[in-house]
Amino acid sequence: MINKLVEKIKKTNAPIVVGLDPMLSYVPEHITKAAYEQFGETLEGAAEAIWQYNKAIVDAVYDLIPAVKPQIAMYEQFGIPGLMAFKKTVDYCHEKDLVVIGDVKRGDIGSTSAAYATGHLGKVTVGSKNFSGFDEDFATVNPYLGTDGIKPFIDVCKEEKKGIFILVKTSNPSSGEFQDRLIDGRALYELVGEKVAEWGSDCMGDSYSYVGAVVGATYPEQGKILRKIMPNAFILVPGYGAQGGQGKDLVHFFNQDGLGAIVNSSRGIICAYKQDKYKEKGIAPENFADASRLAVEDMIADITGALQ
Amino acid sequence: MINKLVEKIKKTNAPIVVGLDPMLSYVPEHITKAAYEQFGETLEGAAEAIWQYNKAIVDAVYDLIPAVKPQIAMYEQFGIPGLMAFKKTVDYCHEKDLVVIGDVKRGDIGSTSAAYATGHLGKVTVGSKNFSGFDEDFATVNPYLGTDGIKPFIDVCKEEKKGIFILVKTSNPSSGEFQDRLIDGRALYELVGEKVAEWGSDCMGDSYSYVGAVVGATYPEQGKILRKIMPNAFILVPGYGAQGGQGKDLVHFFNQDGLGAIVNSSRGIICAYKQDKYKEKGIAPENFADASRLAVEDMIADITGALQ
Repeated sequence: MINKLVEKIKKTNAPIVVGLDPMLSYVPEHITKAAYEQFGETLEGAAEAIWQYNKAIVDAVYDLIPAVKPQIAMYEQFGIPGLMAFKKTVDYCHEKDLVVIGDVKRGDIGSTSAAYATGHLGKVTVGSKNFSGFDEDFATVNPYLGTDGIKPFIDVCKEEKKGIFILVKTSNPSSGEFQDRLIDGRALYELVGEKVAEWGSDCMGDSYSYVGAVVGATYPEQGKILRKIMPNAFILVPGYGAQGGQGKDLVHFFNQDGLGAIVNSSRGIICAYKQDKYKEKGIAPENFADASRLAVEDMIADITGALQ
Repeated sequence: MINKLVEKIKKTNAPIVVGLDPMLSYVPEHITKAAYEQFGETLEGAAEAIWQYNKAIVDAVYDLIPAVKPQIAMYEQFGIPGLMAFKKTVDYCHEKDLVVIGDVKRGDIGSTSAAYATGHLGKVTVGSKNFSGFDEDFATVNPYLGTDGIKPFIDVCKEEKKGIFILVKTSNPSSGEFQDRLIDGRALYELVGEKVAEWGSDCMGDSYSYVGAVVGATYPEQGKILRKIMPNAFILVPGYGAQGGQGKDLVHFFNQDGLGAIVNSSRGIICAYKQDKYKEKGIAPENFADASRLAVEDMIADITGALQ
């Protein structure tokens, strides 16, 4: 799957991923109204609204991008109906041949991590049959529990040719509270980065490992250090746009081959229609997905421009 | 909810929690057979099997214990039907007046952590109405992202009078890989423990905080240190039984008041019928829940004995 991701990035010339993190407050009124008319003001109604919202955005941008990253928390908050909308979104993005990164940030130990890996990337056996639970292509994973937590994901990745991105240095303001603490003179995130390189070394695709890392766009200096520590790891970079990161900050997340990183924007794309920049172009809320397409084009131009 | 947990522990004289972490391989054949006859060898069939298995165990032990801890990964591996069985289990345990600790180990930043907190502990607003997604009483939370990841959970806990247990020192062999690394001469888990005490200081119940910690039974020395660092935090202790922890190792996880810790056993209870100890008593697989009840009684005796 890492090979497919690299190929699609080359083909689209767009090292970006669209974060499908719908909040109900992002969804234009005509969509929520229709959903509530059909299902009432219920969890099912909310799930229908975010699904319709996602679908319109995916339809508008899928030919420009290699991948999407649905954030499962935004669906999980609506309980079972929300998770059904998550699954529908994953399946629909696969129909559009997009690589799907499940931003699930799971992580546990032993058989429990194996269960998460199975549910999101693998197949579970029921009697004589096998089934995929959610079937993303990649999942994000939390490293706090160490190798016991990561190894079961890697086992499933090898079997299914899928991948993971391990949280190394997150984009949020307080990420330094633990991640930046010095251990023998080096930050914890560096040690985690070394482990990512180690874990990933025996599961290589053609040029990059199945085991990638998450490093926030808001920390370009740390990105530069981590790029060197994990030369074969693809870096998933959140924090672009709404969180403050810009194309020019991101150059050092990439390798000399112009690859090795994929930059996520969520709100900046899916909620573009609320930005003055796109409102001024006369895009009405009914045509919100047109603003998303323009925002994707602008993001690609910003990042590929910075990389040249 | 921390007050309810303390009350129920006092009433049952059982500082224990039963981990409802069903694997299909644990479920006796008469249950899987009936479930597959009804739903086929499908995700729905698997979900029905683990739900029936859980229900029988809960029916057999609910009067002896204060709380249960369903591990969501074991349900999530069966996709949507599995998560429906999780929700059914949570609801059924509430009917039995058990405190439900959702072992979800979620953790993200800002609005994303808020969405997890809403989904598991709070209420989500849809139009003019509010709904609970999963509605556990406590959730386990991963600290790697720092205060930004924890604060949204605490906000929901305050509003809903619910609680969290933050991973501090996990029970697995490789937990030390990052958690034991020294920072200014002290282990990372100690720093996380200090943060737990700090985060918990402004959300106190009558005697303990809503903000608790997870510390593995397999690390009694670290438990002793952390007990002092976080005097008002309830400690959720996994790793008893199948993972190797015993009652005598656990004394220092408790405070002088005999409270302050709640010890989890999963496999040792729910899969007791497979142990020679209970097989020798002539318990057939059809009566697996009887073995679970005996195992709960044995566990209570082991722990309360050690505490005397």
